Amino acid sequence: MRRLTSIGSHLSAPTKHKIVLTRDLGPDIMPMLTTRTDIELVTWPDESAPCTREWLLQNAPGAAGIIILLSMAVDDELMDAAGPNLKAVSTMSVGYEHVDVAALGKRGVRLGYTPDVLTDAVADVSIMLALMASRNDGRSLTLAKDGLWPSFTWAPFAFCGPQLSVTPERPELTVGFIGFGRISHATLRRLVPFGVTNVLYATRPGAKADPVQDAKFAETFGVKEVKRASHEELAAKSDVVFVLAPGGPETKHVINEAFLKGMKKTAVIVNAGRGTLVDSDALAKALKEGWIWGAGLDVIEGEPNVGKDHPLVQEPKCVLLPHIGSATHETRRAMASRAVRNILAGIHDQEMEAEVKTK
Amino acid sequence: MRRLTSIGSHLSAPTKHKIVLTRDLGPDIMPMLTTRTDIELVTWPDESAPCTREWLLQNAPGAAGIIILLSMAVDDELMDAAGPNLKAVSTMSVGYEHVDVAALGKRGVRLGYTPDVLTDAVADVSIMLALMASRNDGRSLTLAKDGLWPSFTWAPFAFCGPQLSVTPERPELTVGFIGFGRISHATLRRLVPFGVTNVLYATRPGAKADPVQDAKFAETFGVKEVKRASHEELAAKSDVVFVLAPGGPETKHVINEAFLKGMKKTAVIVNAGRGTLVDSDALAKALKEGWIWGAGLDVIEGEPNVGKDHPLVQEPKCVLLPHIGSATHETRRAMASRAVRNILAGIHDQEMEAEVKTK
Repeated sequence: MRRLTSIGSHLSAPTKHKIVLTRDLGPDIMPMLTTRTDIELVTWPDESAPCTREWLLQNAPGAAGIIILLSMAVDDELMDAAGPNLKAVSTMSVGYEHVDVAALGKRGVRLGYTPDVLTDAVADVSIMLALMASRNDGRSLTLAKDGLWPSFTWAPFAFCGPQLSVTPERPELTVGFIGFGRISHATLRRLVPFGVTNVLYATRPGAKADPVQDAKFAETFGVKEVKRASHEELAAKSDVVFVLAPGGPETKHVINEAFLKGMKKTAVIVNAGRGTLVDSDALAKALKEGWIWGAGLDVIEGEPNVGKDHPLVQEPKCVLLPHIGSATHETRRAMASRAVRNILAGIHDQEMEAEVKTK
Repeated sequence: MRRLTSIGSHLSAPTKHKIVLTRDLGPDIMPMLTTRTDIELVTWPDESAPCTREWLLQNAPGAAGIIILLSMAVDDELMDAAGPNLKAVSTMSVGYEHVDVAALGKRGVRLGYTPDVLTDAVADVSIMLALMASRNDGRSLTLAKDGLWPSFTWAPFAFCGPQLSVTPERPELTVGFIGFGRISHATLRRLVPFGVTNVLYATRPGAKADPVQDAKFAETFGVKEVKRASHEELAAKSDVVFVLAPGGPETKHVINEAFLKGMKKTAVIVNAGRGTLVDSDALAKALKEGWIWGAGLDVIEGEPNVGKDHPLVQEPKCVLLPHIGSATHETRRAMASRAVRNILAGIHDQEMEAEVKTK
């Protein structure tokens, strides 16, 4: 075990582990850190703004642990600034694209993250977006709040979109999943009572079909068929496509012009995974030209720098939320408390609740 | 059987039944009427505006059947204008508050309507509104489309609302239903995978508790408990309240200040039934003062005359949709074709698919 050396702060002592916290975690969570006698806590002081890179680099030296959020890069420069005392980094997120895992690995620094706890919250938003994207004809979701209802003339097919639930006219509902992990499963479970009959899924390229496992899935979820499919088949047959895969270079723009052109005109696409998976320009074109009915996005490439002039902000058939998948009080408290427990486990060489192997 | 007399149109003939259609039903449905040789069809000619009362009164004389929409009053005046040939009125709606049922009854005129076929579409919107009302912190649903995302500062608890799905922190989910008919059941079925444990429902005043039936419901839906409850208990215990009861004077303002004050601060209320059930002023006050978390409305008292200055349009914690519950292509086609089949059955003295007893 490495020993902590004094790093020049009057608060530090040989027995205290310095933890750098890049954001105040609120009154429910902070006591998990502030009431402990074994740590020296250095917290970014501004509750209304994110921690600056400059502050983080200035405060990293001597840290045994750093708790970070999704927007903060963890790289060689930060590792060098922290120095050899650093034992663990803990991100309050399920994704860790912002972390240079190899840079941590070569220094023996561990990485904690917070999967699982946000599964249900993101599944809830996935269902919400599928419904919103279907029921959004470009006006229906905003017209009343814009005060335009009185001037609107009702008609038998006004505001109509495709129906998510099965109907006697369309008794089958095929759902496609790009990525078929925990969040996809939780989303599918919630969709079953809407009448799902067929499930198609795609994961990493080259993954082999496993009909036995697929048959088990079908039985577990109570649907007619679950099947690994090519992107072409998945696009062509699905009434709703959920994009719920990790980000990173391997999955960049898996939803591109070819995929969108292959979809049904009445289908909707939901992205509650990572923005990079969907080519925004292709999607804007698909919506504008009516290749598909609609889109519901909780994430988008380049977020949060997505302003009024962005083609998908302009596009009436696109519902866009500001990455609120995990934004429930219950889930964010669970993520924050897990991030704290992970960093405490990291500095004390104990098992983390959820750890990314860094080497 | 009454005989149709000539009514002055060169198209009419003694063997033809005159049907007045107050709105063009679109290319999928119209052939059900236009291809028939046994009827003389008189259709309101303007596809972009609703039929006027004046036109309807002018064209009603001699009609054997009239097909109407939700916004058109059917009363003594219209019956008198139509005269003794009128055998049936068919409304393309599940509600019939716009129809003076007694006025039809005393003339022996039958009334067709279109229940059931919209059950799933309205249940879909009920789920959507429950999710939207929970996840709407007043900014989260609109911020990105308003182009404000780039200027927003993320924080661990930004955009948070209460979670619909159960969580380890809140492992029970109690759902309350005002009205417990087909749409409530369909909504409940869709909610079960979100983790519903307890269901409370209230129907008409004085209805007796039936614990045996309730136990059967609990088994059917796969939840811990289903129970008829007082409004007080339902308000106090529910995490989500769905208002899915018929309109009319008996149910006017059943959701009032007392009900809303009795609800949990973290609860949401969804109205996809009829606007008159909820006192809008009381709800605006409840949202403004934080008695409850949020509201999701598909219907509102006084609709569609609900403009920009309406307190619930102004209220950020209120999601308001322009009565799109049944607005899916599939369901509206099913409603329109059922309305047509009902009127054809009515003029030929056959059984209607769905008929309101008028006497």
